[in-house]
Amino acid sequence: MIGIAVIGYGYWGPNLARCFAETEGCRVVAIVDPAAEALARAARHHPMTRLTANWREALADRRVDAVAIATPAATHYEIASAALRAGRHVLIEKPMADNLANARELVDLADRADLRLMIGHTLVYSSAARKIEALISSHDLGNIHYYDSTRVNLGVSRRDVSVLWDLAVHDLAIIRYLLPGEPIAISANGMRFAADAPESLAHVTLYLNDGSVAHLNVNWLAPVKTRRVTIGGSQKLLLWDDLEPSEKVKIYHRGHLVADEPIDPDQAMIDYRIGDMWSPHLSPVEPLMSEAAHFIDCVGRHLVPVTDGKFGLRIVELIEAATLSMQQRGRPVELKAHSPMQAALVSGGRNG
Amino acid sequence: MIGIAVIGYGYWGPNLARCFAETEGCRVVAIVDPAAEALARAARHHPMTRLTANWREALADRRVDAVAIATPAATHYEIASAALRAGRHVLIEKPMADNLANARELVDLADRADLRLMIGHTLVYSSAARKIEALISSHDLGNIHYYDSTRVNLGVSRRDVSVLWDLAVHDLAIIRYLLPGEPIAISANGMRFAADAPESLAHVTLYLNDGSVAHLNVNWLAPVKTRRVTIGGSQKLLLWDDLEPSEKVKIYHRGHLVADEPIDPDQAMIDYRIGDMWSPHLSPVEPLMSEAAHFIDCVGRHLVPVTDGKFGLRIVELIEAATLSMQQRGRPVELKAHSPMQAALVSGGRNG
Amino acid sequence: MIGIAVIGYGYWGPNLARCFAETEGCRVVAIVDPAAEALARAARHHPMTRLTANWREALADRRVDAVAIATPAATHYEIASAALRAGRHVLIEKPMADNLANARELVDLADRADLRLMIGHTLVYSSAARKIEALISSHDLGNIHYYDSTRVNLGVSRRDVSVLWDLAVHDLAIIRYLLPGEPIAISANGMRFAADAPESLAHVTLYLNDGSVAHLNVNWLAPVKTRRVTIGGSQKLLLWDDLEPSEKVKIYHRGHLVADEPIDPDQAMIDYRIGDMWSPHLSPVEPLMSEAAHFIDCVGRHLVPVTDGKFGLRIVELIEAATLSMQQRGRPVELKAHSPMQAALVSGGRNG
Amino acid sequence: MIGIAVIGYGYWGPNLARCFAETEGCRVVAIVDPAAEALARAARHHPMTRLTANWREALADRRVDAVAIATPAATHYEIASAALRAGRHVLIEKPMADNLANARELVDLADRADLRLMIGHTLVYSSAARKIEALISSHDLGNIHYYDSTRVNLGVSRRDVSVLWDLAVHDLAIIRYLLPGEPIAISANGMRFAADAPESLAHVTLYLNDGSVAHLNVNWLAPVKTRRVTIGGSQKLLLWDDLEPSEKVKIYHRGHLVADEPIDPDQAMIDYRIGDMWSPHLSPVEPLMSEAAHFIDCVGRHLVPVTDGKFGLRIVELIEAATLSMQQRGRPVELKAHSPMQAALVSGGRNG
Repeated sequence: MIGIAVIGYGYWGPNLARCFAETEGCRVVAIVDPAAEALARAARHHPMTRLTANWREALADRRVDAVAIATPAATHYEIASAALRAGRHVLIEKPMADNLANARELVDLADRADLRLMIGHTLVYSSAARKIEALISSHDLGNIHYYDSTRVNLGVSRRDVSVLWDLAVHDLAIIRYLLPGEPIAISANGMRFAADAPESLAHVTLYLNDGSVAHLNVNWLAPVKTRRVTIGGSQKLLLWDDLEPSEKVKIYHRGHLVADEPIDPDQAMIDYRIGDMWSPHLSPVEPLMSEAAHFIDCVGRHLVPVTDGKFGLRIVELIEAATLSMQQRGRPVELKAHSPMQAALVSGGRNG
Repeated sequence: MIGIAVIGYGYWGPNLARCFAETEGCRVVAIVDPAAEALARAARHHPMTRLTANWREALADRRVDAVAIATPAATHYEIASAALRAGRHVLIEKPMADNLANARELVDLADRADLRLMIGHTLVYSSAARKIEALISSHDLGNIHYYDSTRVNLGVSRRDVSVLWDLAVHDLAIIRYLLPGEPIAISANGMRFAADAPESLAHVTLYLNDGSVAHLNVNWLAPVKTRRVTIGGSQKLLLWDDLEPSEKVKIYHRGHLVADEPIDPDQAMIDYRIGDMWSPHLSPVEPLMSEAAHFIDCVGRHLVPVTDGKFGLRIVELIEAATLSMQQRGRPVELKAHSPMQAALVSGGRNG
Repeated sequence: MIGIAVIGYGYWGPNLARCFAETEGCRVVAIVDPAAEALARAARHHPMTRLTANWREALADRRVDAVAIATPAATHYEIASAALRAGRHVLIEKPMADNLANARELVDLADRADLRLMIGHTLVYSSAARKIEALISSHDLGNIHYYDSTRVNLGVSRRDVSVLWDLAVHDLAIIRYLLPGEPIAISANGMRFAADAPESLAHVTLYLNDGSVAHLNVNWLAPVKTRRVTIGGSQKLLLWDDLEPSEKVKIYHRGHLVADEPIDPDQAMIDYRIGDMWSPHLSPVEPLMSEAAHFIDCVGRHLVPVTDGKFGLRIVELIEAATLSMQQRGRPVELKAHSPMQAALVSGGRNG
Repeated sequence: MIGIAVIGYGYWGPNLARCFAETEGCRVVAIVDPAAEALARAARHHPMTRLTANWREALADRRVDAVAIATPAATHYEIASAALRAGRHVLIEKPMADNLANARELVDLADRADLRLMIGHTLVYSSAARKIEALISSHDLGNIHYYDSTRVNLGVSRRDVSVLWDLAVHDLAIIRYLLPGEPIAISANGMRFAADAPESLAHVTLYLNDGSVAHLNVNWLAPVKTRRVTIGGSQKLLLWDDLEPSEKVKIYHRGHLVADEPIDPDQAMIDYRIGDMWSPHLSPVEPLMSEAAHFIDCVGRHLVPVTDGKFGLRIVELIEAATLSMQQRGRPVELKAHSPMQAALVSGGRNG
């Protein structure tokens, strides 16, 4: 029975506590939050659990084998590094840290102590992502040509970080999880709505080393919430609309015509699509439940989490590279594959 | 009664001939196409009209006051310049020419001869575009912050030109028509599906001189045809879905919250949208009918067309700049406003 | 080469003339309409065709082998019976006649003269209907349990006939074409919006002799045009949305749970759907083109049309029975299967 | 501070307990369920609340002022009548009883004791229903002509009662709440999928005394979950799609054309809709929270609940009348308005 301390009981912490409470093989032994109001809420839902305002107390509790950290990103490093030094396994909410140096140190700490370090990229654990991963790895879609995501919200923006950290982070994790190619360059464009605010919308293009590209459209101020990913393969096209209640993933048999004359596609009565569409059944399991179970499984059986520290580190690298490019109106930033990023401005690459 | 010659009776020419035949104040006096099969089709629908395989014959016909050119883009310059030199008003299908020099010369020729030169950017003449233009110019949406378009097709690609000339051209015309700002820089990313093919998908960001940005997502190989434009203003947000049968344009009263803590927007139960949505009634007039009527009106009353030669020239400049950037993985290309473009690579601008 | 006379060139006649003109094996030799304006339009599109205001002239024309009648329903009987007596094959727009006696006589006339009599139930010739027919007849959906259609419009109502003749007629033809069962009773409810107007909305339930039921919701005054048919089988469920541009037909693998306790389905987090969905590719051929080709094929090869006179007669019987029930607030009307209907009020049947 | 006992902690009881726990002016003092497992769950979420397997114990508890009953419908009468006799106010889940006699007695008991009796028709308390009620009562839609609902599920059916008790009950409550007319007759059709099962789909038409009609399409075995209500008024049309995330209610300005000739509405290029559409903002408050607050308010201030015992009784009457008609293939059943129903088969009414 693995003892868990949930640190941070604001917005996301209650979900973590609930999921770990319902996961086999573990027990929530402590909940930490500096706010008395938060602890009062925790008491109602977890009456048998130790409640404290001080995370160091929880780390000192011998029943605590692992901590799940859902505090503001700026505090991730301090708490996670202390937990690892205290010999506790760690699950941190994304992003794992607010700068690369801290993220790297957490990876090193976990490596040296042989502890599990997992980042809460929850979308990776959704049934849709897992089904798509199976389709891609079995080569069902053919070679992947492009990934194209629109992930936009209806008007809640943040003061502290740009939309890249808030929304693009989901796509970058999914790209890392799903796509066989390795990012080699990034071009990003963004916009601030007020001079003193972070970027509220951004468009990011990743160039991958297999010739494919990924594009992200993220925006805090859209009229209609959208979660729509298209993946183009040489055999089939896939559409993942995460807001669809029962047909989240659709696969289209590839239809493709090449026209010799200048046809206006808005007018043509041509039969564009050739072949059928199908939509696979997806398990209705809550992604966070799968994530919690995976963490417990990795701790218990000494496995490497899918979204381990190195995975999370790579996401931070990609966000930092995109931020750099965004500040220069899309100027491409080159990435070193598989190694800690050494971002460099490139003088003008070659496309495709 | 203005006499019209329709030159080119392949895919688009029959639509032009039909619309001019139904427009008051003009008459289709000649139809030109080198293909006998095309002329046979023309004979069935326009039995009283002169049919010829030779456009020079039509230009020599004294009843011809104006020509409407729907031939392949590579021939636009030769035919249009001859028509202008022969003193005929000219409507050319977009794009007006396949290079900047030719486009500029056509503008000059028309200017010097004081003839109408209009480019067939049909979407500008749609009821939706006109309604949106009225909403923006009356400041109903507030200051425009962004334009974001997804214009993707289901698998008809072209061999001769990239997707920029085929699909982005529509958005560039709409941006030019609708947005008060002037483009000052472009960053574009694209991808070829085969080494010898033009780019099949592209993402283009335009920076405008009022701080707004416009983004275009164009793709020939998407699973679902999409024509979706979002316009974000400081007061309201607008959604234009041109494939909706009866609610093409929706206006959302702006809801905007700023969150102090790291809220995950996928989970938040916050009430995002504040205020109502409304969808204005749009006239069902066919855009090409409005375009034809506008051309006849401009010729008859000596007016400047909305999409005149200078308008079309600017679109060609923007496509060329986007192409240059696309070849360098998004490296921004600076534009000189309101003058023939002198594209220059910028060394790293400042974002918004 | 079969010579066709199109009688009636108002709203639907031009479509018939266009389709026959493009169909192999036939020629449009005459077009008839009493209105000079209509004949002038016909002259522009069919310059080589004989034009006349008098349908008796067309029947007397020896080049005319068959007539296609698109006049108001009240005139169908007079023209069609004269045509059959003159030895011409006949295609009549639905409904074939405005009362049962006339419909029966047309069937008899055609039978005795061994002429083709076909009714223009165009929807039966759509690619979607043909695909669904193949799925049902191959038992792919299992036993058919129900057919449920919503066919509503946005505000064009008619003065002369109720919504049953205008909209329900489509579903009744489809039911007749697709479903293996034979209607044995009808219950219908309707509503007039004004005392002197025909019913503008109606709900019709058909009981079939295999225990299945069919339901139609037709309405002239709905806010959103809808064409949505659900077919429930013991193995699969099918959804036909005829307004979907590219996924008109979707097939769902049947999921079915039986709950022992009183679950509120609005709240349950149960995984309702079990199995996949798929959407077959459909040919983009225009239904009226298929209909015209089928008529020519039946005339040329002496075949029985799918929607022959007996088929059309059955539809008229069903509409009359529904009208009778509608006048009595849903009181069920019993039908005699496969024979000219002898409608009778039933004193209270037994349900399923 | 009103003390509440929640009786029944299976599927719906936990929601009631949660909502009352968060409602001001009341306290959950007892939770009752015969199942130990249910009480264990209750203990985790309501650690301070008395837990018991015996509802008579809860009724005897002097802190209990009111009970909320979420047990199976067959037990509603016994528990509710005992609670009223014990002087407790009562909130019962819909349906209030499984037969009319019991429902009537509960109304009488509450009347005589001057206690609040409220039925949990939760949908009435949704923001959408309240907004629509305001639009109708302010005559914004004009005279109401029709109500048309499609409320279908994806494959969870019940063994104990027909789909009328499970799904139609929602619409009947909404009709009662929203429509000014009084039901005077019902015609219903239904179908069993197995001989020993209750009806799994049903179509119900209500005739109201102002000439309007209401129609319900309810089905447990549909391919796509649907919650879609259309309300047709003489001025405007309203669409309520309860599954839409952010535009649940849309109002269309009434467009209406009357055609003199037989137009096929599938083909007509007519501009159907005249005028704009708008979608009002709705409060995101959870309906059950509003319901709980309303109950506490009525108890505390001695008010008549919107969905009081008489309201609930009327719904039971309507379901019983619909069931009677359904067993006779739609034969209309006449209703006596505003008084305990005396259902009678009518011999053939007149349609409005």
